[in-house]
Amino acid sequence: MTGGNKEVEQTKSTNIVLFSGDYDKVMAAYIIANGAAAYDHKVTIFHTFWGLNALRKDNPPAVKKSFIEKQFAKMMPRGADKMGLSNMNMGGMGPKMIKQVINKHNAMTMPQLIEMAQEQEIELVACTMTMDLLGLKQEELLDDVNYAGVAAYLADAENGNVNLFI
Amino acid sequence: MTGGNKEVEQTKSTNIVLFSGDYDKVMAAYIIANGAAAYDHKVTIFHTFWGLNALRKDNPPAVKKSFIEKQFAKMMPRGADKMGLSNMNMGGMGPKMIKQVINKHNAMTMPQLIEMAQEQEIELVACTMTMDLLGLKQEELLDDVNYAGVAAYLADAENGNVNLFI
Amino acid sequence: MTGGNKEVEQTKSTNIVLFSGDYDKVMAAYIIANGAAAYDHKVTIFHTFWGLNALRKDNPPAVKKSFIEKQFAKMMPRGADKMGLSNMNMGGMGPKMIKQVINKHNAMTMPQLIEMAQEQEIELVACTMTMDLLGLKQEELLDDVNYAGVAAYLADAENGNVNLFI
Repeated sequence: MTGGNKEVEQTKSTNIVLFSGDYDKVMAAYIIANGAAAYDHKVTIFHTFWGLNALRKDNPPAVKKSFIEKQFAKMMPRGADKMGLSNMNMGGMGPKMIKQVINKHNAMTMPQLIEMAQEQEIELVACTMTMDLLGLKQEELLDDVNYAGVAAYLADAENGNVNLFI
Repeated sequence: MTGGNKEVEQTKSTNIVLFSGDYDKVMAAYIIANGAAAYDHKVTIFHTFWGLNALRKDNPPAVKKSFIEKQFAKMMPRGADKMGLSNMNMGGMGPKMIKQVINKHNAMTMPQLIEMAQEQEIELVACTMTMDLLGLKQEELLDDVNYAGVAAYLADAENGNVNLFI
Repeated sequence: MTGGNKEVEQTKSTNIVLFSGDYDKVMAAYIIANGAAAYDHKVTIFHTFWGLNALRKDNPPAVKKSFIEKQFAKMMPRGADKMGLSNMNMGGMGPKMIKQVINKHNAMTMPQLIEMAQEQEIELVACTMTMDLLGLKQEELLDDVNYAGVAAYLADAENGNVNLFI
């Protein structure tokens, strides 16, 4: 009869701003995102700043870059699998240890988590403004990524149920 | 008579994913959580990755661990009070300075904030998946901790008012 | 006629806890905040811990400080423009590179983002409890800053649409 309640009528949504480029934080983001998609949430991961590196191709085509853009490109990891840890990175030992235990426990690796996200139709968005700042081009990022800015993020998040900045 | 609005009819809830194992971030999480509980929110802190260390006992019983698990156990702090700062840690000087000013201002220390959280019936949850990854066992964590996965977190958070990733 | 739905009747709100004192994270916070204000959200940035440094004046008046407070004051950046990056800081090279690309792309610098936030009437709040801990005085912070604690934050956030911890 009456004015319905948001929970009943609308699809729920989860909107994650993925700012971090640390393996463990990216992993947490994709685990939450995949869980939410399994619960029928509409899920968007808005990759900005270092989080954009999660979307980089392993072997990107050559693209024209300025001097500073080349420096950034060299220093930043190509894809989530090459990222360091936020904690106990120990010059790359930490990520190796984490990957060993992921294998041991049959947990999902980052490439698998990203593949699952795409299969579950999670919207992977790359922030165009920070792509410009870091000199990343669309050709360098995974296929099936959407390109948008903060306005698109806010349009999703203002009606979202689970909004996180990671 | 009419379709009520969420704010009036339901208990509000605050759901914090505590990913960080930094003293200052854990402190911020518990201050917000305790504040929300004082406002009659149903509050859950979902400890994952390095945040699990906030729940570690000071003197845990001996548990069986693999080689890598032993390394993690040694390197990670036993309890929030032994954590470093996210910023200006200076080899342990920073946390000492912070604890001095906490005492001077009669602010609450981390052990007191956790005790208060338990007294206010804040639900402290340990993420079972990341416990496996880091090799932490239930016997090593504080009593009265609940054990759950991302599905339980999402079930709470999707109806939550204040959802934060810290 | 009936119990309306929050989205239609109320002004939307965005409430950011700005904990971080990293240039890139503070920049992300202010970009989201300014975007939300442009969308007519009521926006509050609650500066706590290292995020307080974004509000520091460049040339503050002399204030009385204890020994530890003087150390903190010396080590912490005076204003967002003097902050380091969360990633690839490289002893200050990283921030210089980022500022170069900000100029090149005509993006907004941190001082401009803060000015725009004030023009858009975004409420800039300084957390009084952490000001005490870090020994920061009101005279050292920008004009038009409000002073409040976690209770005020929660009162805003519990009805908020986009709540983020950055």
